[in-house]
Amino acid sequence: MALQDFDLVLFGGSGDLSMRKLLPAMYARDVAKDLPPSARVICVGRHEWSQEEFLATVEQNSRPHIKKFEAKSWEAFKKRVVYVPLNATDVSTYKALYDCLRHDPNVTLVYYLATPPHLFAQICDNLAEVGLATPNSRVVLEKPLGRDLESARQINKEVGKVFAESQIYRIDHYLGKETVQNLLALRFGNILFEPLWRREWISDVQITIAEKIGVGNRMGYYDTSGALRDMLQNHLLQLLCIVAMEPPTSIAPDAVRDAKLQVLRSLKRFTPTTLAQNIVRGQYRAGHVDGQAVPSYRDEPDAPEYSRTETFVAMKAEIDTWRWAGVPFYLRTGKRMADRLAEIVVRFKPIPHSIFNQPTSSFQPNSLVIRLQPDEGLKMNLMAKTPGDGMRLKPAELELDFNEQFKTPRMDAYERLLLDVLRGQLTLFMRGDELEAAWEWVEPILQSWDADDSQPIPYTSGTWGPAASSALIGRDGLQWREEALPED
Amino acid sequence: MALQDFDLVLFGGSGDLSMRKLLPAMYARDVAKDLPPSARVICVGRHEWSQEEFLATVEQNSRPHIKKFEAKSWEAFKKRVVYVPLNATDVSTYKALYDCLRHDPNVTLVYYLATPPHLFAQICDNLAEVGLATPNSRVVLEKPLGRDLESARQINKEVGKVFAESQIYRIDHYLGKETVQNLLALRFGNILFEPLWRREWISDVQITIAEKIGVGNRMGYYDTSGALRDMLQNHLLQLLCIVAMEPPTSIAPDAVRDAKLQVLRSLKRFTPTTLAQNIVRGQYRAGHVDGQAVPSYRDEPDAPEYSRTETFVAMKAEIDTWRWAGVPFYLRTGKRMADRLAEIVVRFKPIPHSIFNQPTSSFQPNSLVIRLQPDEGLKMNLMAKTPGDGMRLKPAELELDFNEQFKTPRMDAYERLLLDVLRGQLTLFMRGDELEAAWEWVEPILQSWDADDSQPIPYTSGTWGPAASSALIGRDGLQWREEALPED
Repeated sequence: MALQDFDLVLFGGSGDLSMRKLLPAMYARDVAKDLPPSARVICVGRHEWSQEEFLATVEQNSRPHIKKFEAKSWEAFKKRVVYVPLNATDVSTYKALYDCLRHDPNVTLVYYLATPPHLFAQICDNLAEVGLATPNSRVVLEKPLGRDLESARQINKEVGKVFAESQIYRIDHYLGKETVQNLLALRFGNILFEPLWRREWISDVQITIAEKIGVGNRMGYYDTSGALRDMLQNHLLQLLCIVAMEPPTSIAPDAVRDAKLQVLRSLKRFTPTTLAQNIVRGQYRAGHVDGQAVPSYRDEPDAPEYSRTETFVAMKAEIDTWRWAGVPFYLRTGKRMADRLAEIVVRFKPIPHSIFNQPTSSFQPNSLVIRLQPDEGLKMNLMAKTPGDGMRLKPAELELDFNEQFKTPRMDAYERLLLDVLRGQLTLFMRGDELEAAWEWVEPILQSWDADDSQPIPYTSGTWGPAASSALIGRDGLQWREEALPED
Repeated sequence: MALQDFDLVLFGGSGDLSMRKLLPAMYARDVAKDLPPSARVICVGRHEWSQEEFLATVEQNSRPHIKKFEAKSWEAFKKRVVYVPLNATDVSTYKALYDCLRHDPNVTLVYYLATPPHLFAQICDNLAEVGLATPNSRVVLEKPLGRDLESARQINKEVGKVFAESQIYRIDHYLGKETVQNLLALRFGNILFEPLWRREWISDVQITIAEKIGVGNRMGYYDTSGALRDMLQNHLLQLLCIVAMEPPTSIAPDAVRDAKLQVLRSLKRFTPTTLAQNIVRGQYRAGHVDGQAVPSYRDEPDAPEYSRTETFVAMKAEIDTWRWAGVPFYLRTGKRMADRLAEIVVRFKPIPHSIFNQPTSSFQPNSLVIRLQPDEGLKMNLMAKTPGDGMRLKPAELELDFNEQFKTPRMDAYERLLLDVLRGQLTLFMRGDELEAAWEWVEPILQSWDADDSQPIPYTSGTWGPAASSALIGRDGLQWREEALPED
């Protein structure tokens, strides 16, 4: 579907996200001939840069992040890029933006707020005040979308005063990943998975997002946030929703978001007791990652001396529905882990009885591995007969995505999601009530950690977190996948 | 498992099966070092050949059928091959065989009867009379195992006087195929298939064995047999049993054969009315196969002028069990077909509802294709998302066998089954009661065709049989797979 002409406005246009992800994504779509000829990317920022100065910054900070670079198309793309100096909190500076934009019902206006969330309300107000919040304009909100239920509600309320829910695109780039959408296609495009996708046949689900990096230069933000707010409340819960949701009536935005909301509202609430039993938080100490010595969290630049911020969290969540009752969903995320890895593992129950001349315990239970990082992929682990004589079964791995068969290239998550925004396709974006439901579920955990002086468990950098994380899942007779597959 | 030392006696040792299949199979296993050093293959036949004359015949008739030929190992193999002249019906000639064999409890004696079935009883009697039917000897029976229920019972009874059921190996080489065993591994080594393997999720099963060849020089046998006896009663029903059987308690011979027997006994009996509605028989007429003009069946050498023998049969069978009630099993076999092809297609039901922006009818229902000829393979047809933008699902094909992963070579069906005989593994061989149950089910069809002067429907050589075959399955709103996949 051809895109309607647009002006895409990037607030925080000289920031990290714009340079590393958004401009390269738009460039890639330009090379792919997806952009209308007069479509533009308007970067706004506080610096009083000229157009030339800004483009020099783009050359320096954005171009290195482009994968398939071509000089000619790059020069053409830069002609679409416009810089407009603007102070987000000073409405008088919005005049220049107003003048720059095209006021034509056939040109979609998109405001991408790649800024800290405390600016969201004021930017929306200012856009409204100068007449830029038109009915067919759209606003994109980047995480963090609040730091608790109250602040999330506040954001929804303030942005909602200016934009209707149907104009608001809350972005979670994990939902833009090809493999997440492949999972939807597998589940609902085939009769084979849905009958098995339930407590009768699934033993447990593991969702891991592990980073090797530490807090880096983001201590100011990170220490007030932590792994629960920064990763689990959004990315891990969104992935959990995609795995666990009932079949939506259609792929239409509200059908999918209703189904996801139902999952979030069915998550079993933690009590102080169950919380202590089912959640492990950790904080990294000095160690080695990829053979490099790395410092303790508390020795990172600008770290508060006795910070209690968690850089790791693992938990056992449960979903109180007929489909999922009793099936543990193990969630885990952390910094300074042994590996960079994002994956969902849907583990099926063991076969009830071996008819073969090998014990039931020699059958690795089936599992579907949805890999999101570092490479994307979808794999099914099966038991298969070894060829030749006899009847000996061994584990085998089945590739379930079809890039080679289709010979169409994958698309980066930000490219995909920006296109969806530009064509008004809301399915892969969070609705306001979803955001609040996720915070609502997380709230008792935050409150509990605030209420006393308990500490995260220290763990050595370059490991898979505190031993308590393995114990959490080990109590149920299971283990995290990377421990289960020494042959990998 | 290392084989015990053996003397393998091939009755019909200079015949077609010995030359084309059995000797090459033993040679391949010799090259693979599976054979004990003193193991021998003793070929018996009516010709008064010397050892040298016989080996010259082997050079001429068997060696061309060897796939991986090596001069050195071939010379070594020929040292294992011994020729003994013998008249099967004259017990006095068995003395030479007795003298040739090793009478040692540590040497397994196997008699492979690659002869017409009317000789089975007498060979067994003669073996017994000269003392060769020892308790640890084994007998292998090749098809045709009778031409109706009565004659099959007779064979069972006569052979059973000399050999216990546990000594009798009724061979059906389709069960020796790697892929048939892969199917067992998939069904019972994984939790993923068995819950779906039933009427709730499976729409229909198609089993096809199509040949391009005509009757060739076998008119004497074939015209008294026909496709129903020659292919359907044995090969197609055996494959149907493997697909349809309940999980056996173990892979032990009687557990598997009990499960197969239960299927045969649950096949819905045909009445004269249902038989006319659900079975199509055909006879080939002149046409073109691979661009070559080929004659009508009735113009083949030695063809009776008004032969009513069917060279094609298609039917809709049903299994009266909780698992399969209402699921049609379409069986089809014929000569002079458009292609050489043996495959089982397990077709799943369509998805009940499309959540995507494409109609439910655009979703190709899932199917598992178990290919046995010309190449072996196991494939699942899925719907998958095309990579990149949007959410468009297209059919994709998933390879489900793992030869590349395991890097172990496949084994030819006869190699596999001969090894099973030599180590006393009966699982892949038919038991006497199975054989009789299959004939029992076929009997009303044979009787009906004999009872009147109805004719098979003529079909042009090089097609997929009479149009009535497509109509048979078309009545249920379905089609044979090759017609369903024009893109192939």
